[in-house]
Amino acid sequence: MIIVLRPGATKEQLEHIIRKMESLGLKTLVSRGVERTIIGVIGEEDVLRVQPLEVYPGVEKVMPVLAPYKLVSREFKPEDTVIDIKGVKIGANKLVVMAGPCSIEKYDLLLETAKKVKSAGATILRGGAFKPRTSPYSFQGLGEEGLKYLRDVADKVGMLTITELMDSRELVLVERYTDIIQIGARNMQNFNLLKEVGLSQKPVLLKRGMMSTVKELLMSAEYILSNGNFNVILCERGIRTFEDSTRFTLDVSAVPVIKQLSHLPVIVDPSHAAGKWGLVPALSLAAVAAGCDGLIVEVHPRPEEAFSDGAQSLLPEKFSEMMENIRKVAKAVGRDL
Amino acid sequence: MIIVLRPGATKEQLEHIIRKMESLGLKTLVSRGVERTIIGVIGEEDVLRVQPLEVYPGVEKVMPVLAPYKLVSREFKPEDTVIDIKGVKIGANKLVVMAGPCSIEKYDLLLETAKKVKSAGATILRGGAFKPRTSPYSFQGLGEEGLKYLRDVADKVGMLTITELMDSRELVLVERYTDIIQIGARNMQNFNLLKEVGLSQKPVLLKRGMMSTVKELLMSAEYILSNGNFNVILCERGIRTFEDSTRFTLDVSAVPVIKQLSHLPVIVDPSHAAGKWGLVPALSLAAVAAGCDGLIVEVHPRPEEAFSDGAQSLLPEKFSEMMENIRKVAKAVGRDL
Amino acid sequence: MIIVLRPGATKEQLEHIIRKMESLGLKTLVSRGVERTIIGVIGEEDVLRVQPLEVYPGVEKVMPVLAPYKLVSREFKPEDTVIDIKGVKIGANKLVVMAGPCSIEKYDLLLETAKKVKSAGATILRGGAFKPRTSPYSFQGLGEEGLKYLRDVADKVGMLTITELMDSRELVLVERYTDIIQIGARNMQNFNLLKEVGLSQKPVLLKRGMMSTVKELLMSAEYILSNGNFNVILCERGIRTFEDSTRFTLDVSAVPVIKQLSHLPVIVDPSHAAGKWGLVPALSLAAVAAGCDGLIVEVHPRPEEAFSDGAQSLLPEKFSEMMENIRKVAKAVGRDL
Amino acid sequence: MIIVLRPGATKEQLEHIIRKMESLGLKTLVSRGVERTIIGVIGEEDVLRVQPLEVYPGVEKVMPVLAPYKLVSREFKPEDTVIDIKGVKIGANKLVVMAGPCSIEKYDLLLETAKKVKSAGATILRGGAFKPRTSPYSFQGLGEEGLKYLRDVADKVGMLTITELMDSRELVLVERYTDIIQIGARNMQNFNLLKEVGLSQKPVLLKRGMMSTVKELLMSAEYILSNGNFNVILCERGIRTFEDSTRFTLDVSAVPVIKQLSHLPVIVDPSHAAGKWGLVPALSLAAVAAGCDGLIVEVHPRPEEAFSDGAQSLLPEKFSEMMENIRKVAKAVGRDL
Repeated sequence: MIIVLRPGATKEQLEHIIRKMESLGLKTLVSRGVERTIIGVIGEEDVLRVQPLEVYPGVEKVMPVLAPYKLVSREFKPEDTVIDIKGVKIGANKLVVMAGPCSIEKYDLLLETAKKVKSAGATILRGGAFKPRTSPYSFQGLGEEGLKYLRDVADKVGMLTITELMDSRELVLVERYTDIIQIGARNMQNFNLLKEVGLSQKPVLLKRGMMSTVKELLMSAEYILSNGNFNVILCERGIRTFEDSTRFTLDVSAVPVIKQLSHLPVIVDPSHAAGKWGLVPALSLAAVAAGCDGLIVEVHPRPEEAFSDGAQSLLPEKFSEMMENIRKVAKAVGRDL
Repeated sequence: MIIVLRPGATKEQLEHIIRKMESLGLKTLVSRGVERTIIGVIGEEDVLRVQPLEVYPGVEKVMPVLAPYKLVSREFKPEDTVIDIKGVKIGANKLVVMAGPCSIEKYDLLLETAKKVKSAGATILRGGAFKPRTSPYSFQGLGEEGLKYLRDVADKVGMLTITELMDSRELVLVERYTDIIQIGARNMQNFNLLKEVGLSQKPVLLKRGMMSTVKELLMSAEYILSNGNFNVILCERGIRTFEDSTRFTLDVSAVPVIKQLSHLPVIVDPSHAAGKWGLVPALSLAAVAAGCDGLIVEVHPRPEEAFSDGAQSLLPEKFSEMMENIRKVAKAVGRDL
Repeated sequence: MIIVLRPGATKEQLEHIIRKMESLGLKTLVSRGVERTIIGVIGEEDVLRVQPLEVYPGVEKVMPVLAPYKLVSREFKPEDTVIDIKGVKIGANKLVVMAGPCSIEKYDLLLETAKKVKSAGATILRGGAFKPRTSPYSFQGLGEEGLKYLRDVADKVGMLTITELMDSRELVLVERYTDIIQIGARNMQNFNLLKEVGLSQKPVLLKRGMMSTVKELLMSAEYILSNGNFNVILCERGIRTFEDSTRFTLDVSAVPVIKQLSHLPVIVDPSHAAGKWGLVPALSLAAVAAGCDGLIVEVHPRPEEAFSDGAQSLLPEKFSEMMENIRKVAKAVGRDL
Repeated sequence: MIIVLRPGATKEQLEHIIRKMESLGLKTLVSRGVERTIIGVIGEEDVLRVQPLEVYPGVEKVMPVLAPYKLVSREFKPEDTVIDIKGVKIGANKLVVMAGPCSIEKYDLLLETAKKVKSAGATILRGGAFKPRTSPYSFQGLGEEGLKYLRDVADKVGMLTITELMDSRELVLVERYTDIIQIGARNMQNFNLLKEVGLSQKPVLLKRGMMSTVKELLMSAEYILSNGNFNVILCERGIRTFEDSTRFTLDVSAVPVIKQLSHLPVIVDPSHAAGKWGLVPALSLAAVAAGCDGLIVEVHPRPEEAFSDGAQSLLPEKFSEMMENIRKVAKAVGRDL
């Protein structure tokens, strides 16, 4: 932690800060420049983080030196985390593709979709039973019935499942039916929910909030790891910007940035980022080229009839075609599909 | 709803859409321009909103005409909503100021703060017992003990209380101790929580998400009203932008915008917006001049010792001084304090 | 300047950096923490700014300590700058209001507008003769003819003038007719243009770019001051964010932030920020309450016929009404109008 | 153009608008819904764009139907534009890579760099002689001497050249030495400069402003095409967002979006977007996978000594390595390098 004093800071103010630091068991190192005095504080930075140093008299600004997350960091664990779920490995050389409809609607439709995405190379079936909808008047999901469909279809077809958890009270229910628990973008800072899934045995896919920095995403993952669950998959799904030709702006740089900072696997959701199916293939290829560990894609055989997000869902044929191209790009960057 | 067709859209595509609209009980009106054909769709727009019209063959774009919220709108209720809590009126001519520490820490400290903000003119005591913190290693609040302190101090001093609810499971507990339930910015789209407080009898202060548009704030309020609770206070608290000299960017325009669109009261939180106490007075005055119905401000007698947000807390003396100035500006715009 | 080394940085890397710093005439101070080694560099920070320290082997990050601007800073000149133009003082206790049409269109219309805004209390007549338009097919301004109208009308009515300069080649022309030269938001980082007006004798109003930080605005002002022209007025006019209920988001916090960092006067343009005349009065009052030194407002007697920006222009009657309210708020915060 | 009336709009207001439209030679089509009356306006939308329809009494909002650009659109010219400069084709199947230092500094250094990037597969040498710098105290470029170095080195090595033009007054000079004129991000809306290069015979690379939408980028290109120069290359270089782990956020979606809307070639600048050389390879591969026509990359043999942007410059060896990988990804998406 570096503390920069204001130009006119007094000797008393300086000493007040130094005494405070020492009372916390920290060492200080003062360097007096021509224009400013700077205090370097050495020791456990965590002790300092809870101190409102900015309000000490004479302080101009405080600059933390270390990242505030630990367990998710590459420094804590230099090698990549690989999550093995019944043989499907997430974070390994082979890319993992999760595909399916936005919401679970009808059993037969889900089965038809599952068969098609499976044969194109997807290994995990996605589908929402509890839907976070901006409007209270929109379709809110089938609930437990949907979860049953998802489990049953996935077992029939031979896939794993992923579905969103929106409420701690539904954790036991969701755990019963799914292989991976998804925490949606709007809940990335629902800290109680993070703690709950931190206590779960199931792997968690944590989506980045649409207005959250990469650092905040890592802090939210830290909530899960620090409660005991190390099987966390991070997901970039587009951030909110001023650009309006896409629904969100896919932050493809987040992939290499997270890979540098953390050992956790990173996947990309091109469907929610784009909001338009026509852009999904290009974004998927870009994400794979940038080094992600997998994709989560919305596929619907009859988007006209989808209860939600039809505009961003790929037809199964388009999905198959895209998977062919992903295979080629994956190979070009030394990965498999 | 306006449907714009692509330049080369066929007669069949046009007829397919018209048939679909008619099957939904809607009327259509086709206008063929030199460059584009446009379909105006007349009837209940809600029926259309769940239709993924963008994926129909031949469609270029779809433009909704009406706002998707109803109960919160001025059209639904032209006159201002005034919420009366034990005689304190929110949304009336007299401004309401909520003040207190970020987190509830110690009984005596809270009492000291309450006395001071009360005597300066605040009528509602704020303080968090459950704290949403970015880091799992930060202070998470005193829980029920904190709620008891808050109630007890407020009763002693003669103030109302407001405190944040983070989890549906704590609703009954929070309701027992507080007069107003606060939904924090990070939970603005925690739709299950919104539904729960929609069923509560207590007034709700709904903070705008740092990443949410005014329209989304109104949609979230609609969740609460549509579940039966019409006592909702909206709160602008700064949005996330590229500017980094403040913690968030106070969107002061949101005040007149919301006043045009909705009948609900609007208050402003300058403390979280600025992130620095030195800016709080200027932002408070600006908010009052822009027409807000009140403020929620962080005040702490010893910010150096605050468990959270010390940097943005005003000293009680600064708060009193600011209240004097607010009184003057309120009067200048025809309001009272 | 603080240089933070990577966890595994070698002794050689550390020494390489220290030698480099010493060769530049700087002193270093090394503090070895448990997790990181930090180098404090003392001396003229400007020498360092041009060094790409981030690329030195072993360096994790570099944190500047001082602001990169000098002449515009409060540290350089603690007292407020007041610019006196023929007796009209900008930056003094009395607020200054600049008003007029977006573009100069017809002589009579301008005269009519000028008379009305003058009688309502405006002292400076605004109007564009060279218009920066997003589309090449939009009205581009009357050019020199417009400048003549502006000068003539202002002289007749007894006002000062302000108009935008878009091109260095027109500087001499614009200087001939106007009292204040405006640099528009889109040219805030047109550095050659900044240098040119830095050599002019005329005061300059510098608008903040719609995606520029306050710090960048100050750096652009530094270009003007460092070329010899100290008569610079800064102008906040809304920044680009994700919110779409207004054209831009007025960053009202920029007013107190700039007042802390710089001695230059700050005015606010509520018309371009809002993009809708209905919001202009509320934003104007907010800006005055926040401490600005003046306003620049678009007024047009027949917005339906305006060649540009009709939607955000106030009718003269609305302007007069607003001025009454500004007078009251100004008084409430200890200012005059 | 669709005009939506307010709920209570009167018959007189409706008729006033219809008469106005008819006086402009436009046809109208009125549809009266349960909640709103809508007017469809048919005819030349351009005539309407200059009308401030929002201010007409009774109007709630106005929704344009057509894009405001023409010459740059795919509708105007469905096939891809390929720009042929002395045999190097931009926009064709083979990708084009522009590489070199940020600023031109020393002759020998430029020659060394040029040889290396050429042998790695780059065909166009980049380097700035006029530099737009945030600070007036930073290195501003070598001017004409730099241009001479660039031309001479490129001729010696057998490459084309690209360099930035910042000021209309230097157009003739820059044209004399370069093959492609670059318009930088900060000048994307310097409309006079756009008009000038629109009159030039040289191809123009137009960088997207950090604050500009894709649509605005196309409007700025329209300025150049409408002045007669159809040889425009668009360049995505990162937009400004709240994320701070990169200097800008590369908007990789802009590549497929522009490809849908326009026939012009699109290249990507990963160096300025990332601001860190370590991210450049991942972003370059992502851009190629997303379908761009080329890249512009900063390469410097001794970044420690660079006069500007050293932190984001690749070493020649890293660049060569990256080019190998680009070749593979290009092939995977059916392109060549």
